[in-house]
Amino acid sequence: MSKALPKRSENYSEWYNEIVKRAGLAENSAVRGCMVIKPYGFAIWEKMQRALDDMFKATGHQNAYFPLFVPKSFLEKEAEHAEGFAKECAVVTHYRLKNSPDGKGLVVDPAAKLEEELIIRPTSEAVIWNTYKNWVQSWRDLPLLINQWCNVVRWEMRTRLFLRTTEFLWQEGHTAHATEQEAVEEAERMLEVYATFAEQWIAMPVVRGLKSPNERFAGAVETYCIESLMQDGKALQAGTSHFLGQNFAKSFDVKFVNKENQLEYAWATSWGVSTRMIGGLIMAHSDDNGLVLPPKLAPIQVVIVPIYRSPEDLVKISERVGSIVGELRSRGVSVKYDDDDQQRSGWKFAEYELKGIPVRLGIGMRDIENGTVEVARRDTLSKESRPLEGIADHVTLLLDEIQQNIYNKALAFREENTFRVDTWNEFKEQIEKGGFILAHWDGTAETEEKIKDETKATIRCIPLDTPDEQGADVFSGKPSSKRVVFARAY
Amino acid sequence: MSKALPKRSENYSEWYNEIVKRAGLAENSAVRGCMVIKPYGFAIWEKMQRALDDMFKATGHQNAYFPLFVPKSFLEKEAEHAEGFAKECAVVTHYRLKNSPDGKGLVVDPAAKLEEELIIRPTSEAVIWNTYKNWVQSWRDLPLLINQWCNVVRWEMRTRLFLRTTEFLWQEGHTAHATEQEAVEEAERMLEVYATFAEQWIAMPVVRGLKSPNERFAGAVETYCIESLMQDGKALQAGTSHFLGQNFAKSFDVKFVNKENQLEYAWATSWGVSTRMIGGLIMAHSDDNGLVLPPKLAPIQVVIVPIYRSPEDLVKISERVGSIVGELRSRGVSVKYDDDDQQRSGWKFAEYELKGIPVRLGIGMRDIENGTVEVARRDTLSKESRPLEGIADHVTLLLDEIQQNIYNKALAFREENTFRVDTWNEFKEQIEKGGFILAHWDGTAETEEKIKDETKATIRCIPLDTPDEQGADVFSGKPSSKRVVFARAY
Repeated sequence: MSKALPKRSENYSEWYNEIVKRAGLAENSAVRGCMVIKPYGFAIWEKMQRALDDMFKATGHQNAYFPLFVPKSFLEKEAEHAEGFAKECAVVTHYRLKNSPDGKGLVVDPAAKLEEELIIRPTSEAVIWNTYKNWVQSWRDLPLLINQWCNVVRWEMRTRLFLRTTEFLWQEGHTAHATEQEAVEEAERMLEVYATFAEQWIAMPVVRGLKSPNERFAGAVETYCIESLMQDGKALQAGTSHFLGQNFAKSFDVKFVNKENQLEYAWATSWGVSTRMIGGLIMAHSDDNGLVLPPKLAPIQVVIVPIYRSPEDLVKISERVGSIVGELRSRGVSVKYDDDDQQRSGWKFAEYELKGIPVRLGIGMRDIENGTVEVARRDTLSKESRPLEGIADHVTLLLDEIQQNIYNKALAFREENTFRVDTWNEFKEQIEKGGFILAHWDGTAETEEKIKDETKATIRCIPLDTPDEQGADVFSGKPSSKRVVFARAY
Repeated sequence: MSKALPKRSENYSEWYNEIVKRAGLAENSAVRGCMVIKPYGFAIWEKMQRALDDMFKATGHQNAYFPLFVPKSFLEKEAEHAEGFAKECAVVTHYRLKNSPDGKGLVVDPAAKLEEELIIRPTSEAVIWNTYKNWVQSWRDLPLLINQWCNVVRWEMRTRLFLRTTEFLWQEGHTAHATEQEAVEEAERMLEVYATFAEQWIAMPVVRGLKSPNERFAGAVETYCIESLMQDGKALQAGTSHFLGQNFAKSFDVKFVNKENQLEYAWATSWGVSTRMIGGLIMAHSDDNGLVLPPKLAPIQVVIVPIYRSPEDLVKISERVGSIVGELRSRGVSVKYDDDDQQRSGWKFAEYELKGIPVRLGIGMRDIENGTVEVARRDTLSKESRPLEGIADHVTLLLDEIQQNIYNKALAFREENTFRVDTWNEFKEQIEKGGFILAHWDGTAETEEKIKDETKATIRCIPLDTPDEQGADVFSGKPSSKRVVFARAY
């Protein structure tokens, strides 16, 4: 570390960028808006994938793979969907390069123009529902419960590492059902899977809710979402689950014979989370010293650093550490023993703090003599000397405690920064300070847009778990039956 | 199954296509040359990925992710590389669609033309070496041992499910080293990883060898490969590992300060295997009844089918089966109990045979009374009655035996179909019958091409494990010091 990180309080945006860079998570590539996910960042994504994939399979889903390319005519079939994605499509028009006539380099071969342009998938409803047409004939073929892990491309004008990139990695579930109720239940089930993952793995509390019609996915009847509050008071949408009704079935002619022997269009859902969640993870927990990782998603959960003067000391320490490493691994804990002699232990301490390793054990010769070890927690930055005896059990419990603690901290932060607001002046004042605002909304797109124009705040969601309550819209004064969550958002 | 599969002996190509389709592995998509990998096919790919990924990590590699897009100017930098891939590139030229002026559908927005065209990666050397430039300054930064799992696109004119598709899934390792020797060792190490995977997991014996200069990867100094013999006597290249010398380091200016404090270009390797391996797996083992899966890659290793008349019988059978399922799962065996009452057991038997499930257990009421179970092996199509007591142990051992047996069978097939040929007439005759031909080659591209023109046979590889032997080229009669492997290939 050449110099200190920017402070969150001074420049949150720079703080974020620097953490991503210095912790070795990702970097901008030479291709506009596309990122390189570096090994340490990708290892977090792998942990996320494994956990989510297990949850998808436990709820009956199977993985498959559909083409990267969407023929333009497919995208056109569902009108709202087309409208929603047309403006950010990467378009393949040719399939060959040739040597430049002037002898310098390569040019697109005009003879190799595609008859129909291919869009790089921004999402796969069109390609998948065109396929489902051949898979669904009878109610016996339903439900289809399929997920795919892949890359997608949306040509964004302003990009930020993890949070918004032209190409990103995600999973997209696409299911087909025989009844409306089943499809709605599926969309709700997957929202709950996402919420559970966000809370129990990312340690990031979320509000479960519905999007307003304005903010719905293009082509959806209803969009469910999870929304989380970042430390700068802005909201992050961390995942969405859509009930698509029969829209795509009608556009792609996916009909089946139901139990009553009648032809019916299939009912659909789709749901996705992406590498954006890594951005959420970083912003939810990290501090001015660097990344803070939830133990369940940390590629390395425990790092052990020997503190020594002579090579002989190192041999003695390493001998003792060997058995600790073994005990921790046998408990399923991922451990790194850093006996690299090119770096001082002070440098290592700072480096692992920056990288957010949940627990650091420091062992010197005096520790060996006294049978102790220094245990440092990344979340609280506290240290204590502990007996070496039983240290593996202690660390295993400590990892659980850290996981819970950072969740509690994020939850307390959200609660302190959620405000019930009833007047427009108060709303305008509060939105400048950040946080979730619970306010009444009259249910119209018009009011929603005016509020956005004046304050840059959007309706993050209509929460699922808050009671109905009579009131007056914070802007228009018109009657409202429920408070919704407003915030500025990523 | 509406009708029997085509026989291998009658129409090998149709037999292959029908197995892929009927076993539910993959299908052609509406996008030219791109396939949909269906859940059962994808489950095999997931097993392959998991096994390979573990092997990559055990040899010190980490995963990362690089952009899908390669700017045209990057591809141009390494001349041979550009030459090799230019003719099969999907090219993105625009980043937006707009409503058609005639009001019908969407058209490419001419105002959204990219300044520089982007190529969908056919492979990622160019993008990755452009990134490595910033990662490598000193010998301390080396080696870089990185792998990525992703999709790539090569615009192939003639495609076949799994074997050759426009888009395919693969992994590509890209490593940078401080010395030539280290890089060569890496290329050889990864070839051995591939060979081990092919033999121990796919149960597919391979010849390890070097490509002739003609068949080298575009931009490589040396291409190592594994070649396998399919049941129709054609060869399949199942994986390649390239020693790239300093070619890419020079093209992308990747220099480092070596231990002698001098600036030097980094040494490179790259290596990849793809969903093509699934095609190899199918063709290596399957028979006229359908797919035959090696147990280690079978998504379902054991299927249990109840044979019953009354619902009461089914309850009794299911009760007994429950504990068998538990015992098998506790041994790490994946089991499906198919108690679906919509299908007869005869239909199920045929279906699981088609799908290549290694072991099928059939249990009827008489079995329950006698304490027996019918054990059917997919590889030999043999059945026997076994005691229920200890069945989990028996099946666990049987799976190992099947894995070994199908490997032995494939090896015996290859040995029977490998021929030492010394005359041109014999060569022409043998190549029509198929198989690997071990023949002398004078080492010139000219002879290699003439042989290919006359017989469609190519040099599959110069084997690593055969001794030098003086002889005369089978075509030109010029002196040769080693036999090489010729075959017609996929």
